[in-house]
Amino acid sequence: MRTGTGLIPIGVIRTPFCQAAGTPIQPVFAEGAMGRVEVRPKYAQGLAGLSGFERIWLIYPFDRVSETRLTVVPYRDRRPRGVFATRAPCRPNRIGLSCVRLLSVQAGVLHVADVDILDETPLWDIKPYIAAFDAFPGVRSGWMDASTSGRTRADERFHRPRADER
Amino acid sequence: MRTGTGLIPIGVIRTPFCQAAGTPIQPVFAEGAMGRVEVRPKYAQGLAGLSGFERIWLIYPFDRVSETRLTVVPYRDRRPRGVFATRAPCRPNRIGLSCVRLLSVQAGVLHVADVDILDETPLWDIKPYIAAFDAFPGVRSGWMDASTSGRTRADERFHRPRADER
Repeated sequence: MRTGTGLIPIGVIRTPFCQAAGTPIQPVFAEGAMGRVEVRPKYAQGLAGLSGFERIWLIYPFDRVSETRLTVVPYRDRRPRGVFATRAPCRPNRIGLSCVRLLSVQAGVLHVADVDILDETPLWDIKPYIAAFDAFPGVRSGWMDASTSGRTRADERFHRPRADER
Repeated sequence: MRTGTGLIPIGVIRTPFCQAAGTPIQPVFAEGAMGRVEVRPKYAQGLAGLSGFERIWLIYPFDRVSETRLTVVPYRDRRPRGVFATRAPCRPNRIGLSCVRLLSVQAGVLHVADVDILDETPLWDIKPYIAAFDAFPGVRSGWMDASTSGRTRADERFHRPRADER
């Protein structure tokens, strides 16, 4: 069995956000923040046909988080939750998933909006957002349905190691 | 910079599908097919609060695909497309993403429905599907909006190496 763990950067994500504090916590809170996805020339052929999609998934490492915590207080809540019930970055496998808006594709560069990603994050994969596969409006969304926090921007809670937490 | 490429299996996904041929190509075509996600005991604490979510994202390697192709004919189309404009598994980084239905969580085991994943696939991550973050119904979805194929099940096209294709 191949476990496929040998992931390689296929490009880099450029955004206005150089530190966690102040970075939007999700694309829906990014207020249109613009970014650029620079795909390595050897993979640019794989972008053919992508420009017809309004949104795309970016998959990338949370490369500036070094700690795993199984219990977290997420940005949109005030109570501890299991990390798999949240989108917090301090996961056992620090895989990030963002649904950004695709503005244009030019010579291996994707111009995107609604980015919630730190600048210079390596890119692992791009998938088209396909409404028929991915959109489940109104599904029950656990603690988020009663979220008591209106926070839209990150702080340093997951990026600064804290000796007092697991 | 940590690239975070050292991903580890945090569990295993059990499904009725032992080979690509006949496996649903997406959860929406899985007709309720049931599966089980067995999370390793050391990570089970991270599942707290997950049961309130109706759907979850599973992230995993396409561990039985060994080839990268930058141009593919996807299951739902008859024309070649760039692999990043499709959900085909033969990607440079073979990362799978499925939005399955969560039925229950019991002692580190998730009972799920609408699985489109091969049996014994390693699990990399679980994220809650949050309608407010992930549901964009009606967005323009490129070639899929004019899809000319009604195919709902996979064949072996991405799992059998073909010397005549790149």
